[in-house]
Amino acid sequence: MRIGLLGFGTVGQGVYELTGPRPDMQVAWVLCRRPLSLPDAKVTHDFNDILLDPTVDTVVEAIGGLHPAREYVLAAIQAGKNVVTANKALVATFYDELLPLTQEQGTLLRCTASVGGGIGWLSELERVRRIETVEQVGGIVNGTCNYILDAMTRRSLSYEEALAQTQALGYAEADPTTDVDGIDTWHKLIVSANIAFGVSLDISAIPAAGIRRIRGEDVARFRARGYTCKLICQAAREGAAFHAFVQPTLFPQGVPEATVPDNYNLITLVGSTSGRQSFLGQGAGRYPTAYNVVQDCVDFLNGRGFYCRYGPKVRVTNDKALCYYVRGGDWPRERTRENWDGAAVTEPVPIFQMHRWLKENPEAFIAALPG
Amino acid sequence: MRIGLLGFGTVGQGVYELTGPRPDMQVAWVLCRRPLSLPDAKVTHDFNDILLDPTVDTVVEAIGGLHPAREYVLAAIQAGKNVVTANKALVATFYDELLPLTQEQGTLLRCTASVGGGIGWLSELERVRRIETVEQVGGIVNGTCNYILDAMTRRSLSYEEALAQTQALGYAEADPTTDVDGIDTWHKLIVSANIAFGVSLDISAIPAAGIRRIRGEDVARFRARGYTCKLICQAAREGAAFHAFVQPTLFPQGVPEATVPDNYNLITLVGSTSGRQSFLGQGAGRYPTAYNVVQDCVDFLNGRGFYCRYGPKVRVTNDKALCYYVRGGDWPRERTRENWDGAAVTEPVPIFQMHRWLKENPEAFIAALPG
Repeated sequence: MRIGLLGFGTVGQGVYELTGPRPDMQVAWVLCRRPLSLPDAKVTHDFNDILLDPTVDTVVEAIGGLHPAREYVLAAIQAGKNVVTANKALVATFYDELLPLTQEQGTLLRCTASVGGGIGWLSELERVRRIETVEQVGGIVNGTCNYILDAMTRRSLSYEEALAQTQALGYAEADPTTDVDGIDTWHKLIVSANIAFGVSLDISAIPAAGIRRIRGEDVARFRARGYTCKLICQAAREGAAFHAFVQPTLFPQGVPEATVPDNYNLITLVGSTSGRQSFLGQGAGRYPTAYNVVQDCVDFLNGRGFYCRYGPKVRVTNDKALCYYVRGGDWPRERTRENWDGAAVTEPVPIFQMHRWLKENPEAFIAALPG
Repeated sequence: MRIGLLGFGTVGQGVYELTGPRPDMQVAWVLCRRPLSLPDAKVTHDFNDILLDPTVDTVVEAIGGLHPAREYVLAAIQAGKNVVTANKALVATFYDELLPLTQEQGTLLRCTASVGGGIGWLSELERVRRIETVEQVGGIVNGTCNYILDAMTRRSLSYEEALAQTQALGYAEADPTTDVDGIDTWHKLIVSANIAFGVSLDISAIPAAGIRRIRGEDVARFRARGYTCKLICQAAREGAAFHAFVQPTLFPQGVPEATVPDNYNLITLVGSTSGRQSFLGQGAGRYPTAYNVVQDCVDFLNGRGFYCRYGPKVRVTNDKALCYYVRGGDWPRERTRENWDGAAVTEPVPIFQMHRWLKENPEAFIAALPG
């Protein structure tokens, strides 16, 4: 296998290192804007050098972002090259474009590192689907948010202090919007659910609430009642439709979710015969991510492409009702069931309704109660 | 694929059910001692009917125990049939006989359901080994012991009450020795470690301490200090040799191990590049176990056999030193570091030494401290 590696940042360098000693694959080209010299690969700033090299059979996309990643990946597929990407934004956003095209072209596409970093999550979903129906997927999939919430809960840091630590550690970007507003978690939910259920979810109906508004006072209220707050995603079958959402959620101390430390992920599936299975591991980082990129390359050598066939567009209803913790905003008193030292706990509210209310009250912080 | 199914107990019936609707495999024969009539399979009490049927390409061993399971499996391999088994005692005990024979005969052997029930643990070890070195494996692999310890810790049941519940629920046998003395955990450790490291561990040097002697007073002391006791196994590289042992171990509340509920398992690997990965799921039960048996059959259809090549015999040293909680027996005062309301906490003691002492003091209960 001769690889064209797009990008030489954290993940790209990891892939270059891990493939180095392997006899079965070789990085032939590296696409990199800054000057760079490598002993075993040619370096270019022109993607066409890679696209037009007929000896390159596999493109590893490690530049991130939507553009030009989308254009490069589409061109590679059209040129008959197989593609590995760790880019959840790309796969989630252009699922309906990428999947049909790879099937049409008969090329292989994999993205195992895009959800759960070093965890073999998407490849395990593929294995599960050989035998049974997946009923539900979800969990903690953003290491930055988990680090922040864990530091606020166990070390009583303020949101700002915890965020600054994740940035100092290199987990969060200078602009943490994608992480703390739940967008990264939303992308990972879409990729996971589409593969788990073999469908294409209507992403316009999947809401995401993040953790940007959480304060020490919220965490103190949760702790006093034996709860730990985590940002989770979830998708579940509901007849022919689905529930799918991203939101902060409270877990009683003593359940696995409540213990997930630092920047770890905990992702769960519920299978129709195997039951609940959860996967705990490092959701990001150079080597864990590069590890699953190389796993995808090995799967190409075994002829394995995408995890499922492109499935039908399906509806997302989110009409299941949950109770929520609400602090801030203008939550109606007649729909309040409890008062937690000045914050409201609602009566059961349909998920879609609560997220609509949150859009109109963006200064509020909400968290679902276990239910 | 035409299957000869040995045994029609909990797992055998599950396999029969799950394969029923599949077009790619069919249970042709069921070996069963009691009278039985099935719509889609012939039933026999004579194994030779299956062995001598040339249309049967795969034998699923679901009778358990060492004999005649060993003789049936060896005969099947020698007859060129592929074998799936969920029998950890069989694979652990006869590893040095089974592995070389399957390699010699060119037949396929898999045993994914033998460790972790419905968790794809052994198959994930196989995947991990494509890229990296496994440094360590271990965790909670016996659902009965976890149920007992969880009930004693969270519901303050006595050992006898908790054991009776596991028997009423069908988790434990009438004679619970294999579970509570750590033998089942020991078998699962051997299978996991041999596959993870690609070796054959010297099983005579792997000690197992169980939970038979634990009392409510022990649990109360642990709880008062923020610890939860779990029966774990562990194997780790130590230069060219290995540590490998089974023993009760204390975990601080707030780590994932401490939260594992009921009869669940939590199994962990540490990979050289992917880092720590843990797997939580149902470690036993009809459908989870049958699920992984059928997964192995699907792997046969894809030409996949055992998880690794038969590896060299390696030494187990267990000379790492840990601190232990010790209640009962004659532990020397000069090697005691702390007193926990009448029980001793030792200074660091090499693992092999502590287990030797325990053999001489079988009325004592020990648990390793985190360390």
